[in-house]
Amino acid sequence: MNPFDFTMPTKFYVGAGRLGVLEEIAPAYGRKAMICAAKDTMRALGFTDRVGALLKAAGVDFSIVDDVEPNPRDVDIDRQTERFVAENCDFTIGLGGGSALDTAKAIAFLAAQDDRSVRSYIAGGSKADLEKVNRPFPVICIATTAGTGSEATKWFVVTDTRSHDKPGVGHDLLMPSASIVDPELMLSMPPSVTRSCGIDVLFHAMEAYVAKCANPFTDILAEASLRLVMRYLDRAIRHGDTDIEARANMAWASMLGGVVIGEGNSGTVAIHALGHSVGGQTGAPHGLTMCPFAVPYLEKTWRADIRRHAELTRIFGGDEGGLSEEALAARSPAAMKRVLQQFDCDVRMRDLGVTEAMIEPMTDSVFSTMAGVLNNSLVSFERRDVTELFRAAM
Amino acid sequence: MNPFDFTMPTKFYVGAGRLGVLEEIAPAYGRKAMICAAKDTMRALGFTDRVGALLKAAGVDFSIVDDVEPNPRDVDIDRQTERFVAENCDFTIGLGGGSALDTAKAIAFLAAQDDRSVRSYIAGGSKADLEKVNRPFPVICIATTAGTGSEATKWFVVTDTRSHDKPGVGHDLLMPSASIVDPELMLSMPPSVTRSCGIDVLFHAMEAYVAKCANPFTDILAEASLRLVMRYLDRAIRHGDTDIEARANMAWASMLGGVVIGEGNSGTVAIHALGHSVGGQTGAPHGLTMCPFAVPYLEKTWRADIRRHAELTRIFGGDEGGLSEEALAARSPAAMKRVLQQFDCDVRMRDLGVTEAMIEPMTDSVFSTMAGVLNNSLVSFERRDVTELFRAAM
Repeated sequence: MNPFDFTMPTKFYVGAGRLGVLEEIAPAYGRKAMICAAKDTMRALGFTDRVGALLKAAGVDFSIVDDVEPNPRDVDIDRQTERFVAENCDFTIGLGGGSALDTAKAIAFLAAQDDRSVRSYIAGGSKADLEKVNRPFPVICIATTAGTGSEATKWFVVTDTRSHDKPGVGHDLLMPSASIVDPELMLSMPPSVTRSCGIDVLFHAMEAYVAKCANPFTDILAEASLRLVMRYLDRAIRHGDTDIEARANMAWASMLGGVVIGEGNSGTVAIHALGHSVGGQTGAPHGLTMCPFAVPYLEKTWRADIRRHAELTRIFGGDEGGLSEEALAARSPAAMKRVLQQFDCDVRMRDLGVTEAMIEPMTDSVFSTMAGVLNNSLVSFERRDVTELFRAAM
Repeated sequence: MNPFDFTMPTKFYVGAGRLGVLEEIAPAYGRKAMICAAKDTMRALGFTDRVGALLKAAGVDFSIVDDVEPNPRDVDIDRQTERFVAENCDFTIGLGGGSALDTAKAIAFLAAQDDRSVRSYIAGGSKADLEKVNRPFPVICIATTAGTGSEATKWFVVTDTRSHDKPGVGHDLLMPSASIVDPELMLSMPPSVTRSCGIDVLFHAMEAYVAKCANPFTDILAEASLRLVMRYLDRAIRHGDTDIEARANMAWASMLGGVVIGEGNSGTVAIHALGHSVGGQTGAPHGLTMCPFAVPYLEKTWRADIRRHAELTRIFGGDEGGLSEEALAARSPAAMKRVLQQFDCDVRMRDLGVTEAMIEPMTDSVFSTMAGVLNNSLVSFERRDVTELFRAAM
């Protein structure tokens, strides 16, 4: 057992109907909030109004930024940050999926710095080491999807509009102050979004389980998260408008996945590293961008840890009995393939809009912005290996 | 799924050799520490000197209270608190098992209050509601046993020398600032202590698993903790001086148990409620005080949640195949009995020094100091039920 350190400073409020706790907790974070809401959907569903009403009841003033798009762009985050500063807000409230939560984290972080340009803090930026940063403003995350687990991580991801990279910025101070995970807010998620978000949960847990820095804490939570996805994602896709039990368990799986790749200090591996570059180039839904790499990745890694890959096969339902641990581990790519088929996620890169010409810049992007994630894989990835994995996924 | 809230504000440092991190982290908590060390053992093992040397290297001054006895008494805590104040300490370091960690928490809490008498804050005291308390001084816990999980809880337990009660004091602000869990410090624990501490871990996890306020977060961690105890406690008892893997996994199980009954917001049940009164009357090792109640308790409760009690039977190794869930649940008391026998812990109350005459005052004590814990049981416990459980355990 290697040494491992962890903490979970965020206050979590989990369960159906828990949104109401916002009225109780908001005043502790300041007198004026900026609600950062996913574009169109949050207003259409009435969620922005509900959050506003709770803040009003709590005596907390607020302004609204509700133009957060999927895969938030550097230029939008800078603009929203200036508004936070100009309007003298005290804290942000992310309302939506990963993009809205990440935007809320980014604004709260940037608004507290002397240099407020997000590009300064991403890979290649002048302050990318994140040393000597000021303490961010508080952040409350209200998750309306079960996917990124951003409500439980110290990360935000931004799309670099110049390079088409999609780097992550991570710092201990970026943990949300509080996170509300209310599955009732997820009942209206359409099946396609439920699927692409749910498959992201699966990748967080699965990758962290076979990551170099997996530890006993993340193992427990990653296994639990994977089992929940295997048990409830199909129900959430099929009957997501009424099946609150499936929604609640997928929300919980998503949060666990966030803890695993966040404060649990495991993390994702080459699958996410390559997936981000697909997202940066094509803007495809984040969850789907990992799918093309999963099977060839496991083919490359299963020998590096027989026990863990055998367990993956079991969790994925690929244990037909009578097999040795090694034989089970060897079946993990096939078991993964069936899971992707089961959730209708067995896509290739070209299905997501990737062309041959993108492979070189995507490979550059992996090394310039996701090297840390890449190196968390159980086997080493040279440039040649990354290109090979891209080609296998084409 | 019921709503549940949790956080884990403590910074955890877990693993063999992790004690060294103290040098790095101590200066953040102040200029002068008070080391609260378990009596005799910590000095004899050289642990007090090692902690002192790390503080010295960090430039942190310190004083030492190394007369912490098992089941710490109110009068001792008050005396130690006055020393903390008189010597202008900034934070405490608990070094030892639950008693030392609890003492460190109690002193750090009391020293920050206007009324510094611990008796004011226990059940029946003038400030037992713990409202409007001042923020405690920081606490670093260094666990040298795998038992109480105090390194991960917001609780300290104190023995009331007037009533012989053994109430717990719990408050969100009582979470340790940092906890170091280094299994190397546990190699020298004698087998009898390993056993009585290890069985305490089992009870924390088991009780929290069948508690009224169990939730999905605590379920995951409680199951993991129980499985680790079943797998490693025997090895830790038999080969505890060399088997670092067993020590590490028991340390981890203990910490998980602490999270489950602490910030995870599940908790113990009637078994602990009655056990505390045995400890208060007899001073018997805490872990053993629960053993007499376990089997009759499960006999009383298994019908209240078939699924959970069936799972207990499985975890305890009592699933011989082919049984229904109900039949498995019905076997949980027998499976529990065999586990107690396996760990040589199948003791009765009279083995721990309890006499018939103590049952009435112990029953009083359960209701005056442990009513909250008692009410966390899946079935209700009237006075008659408690007396009955005491008699069954005699």
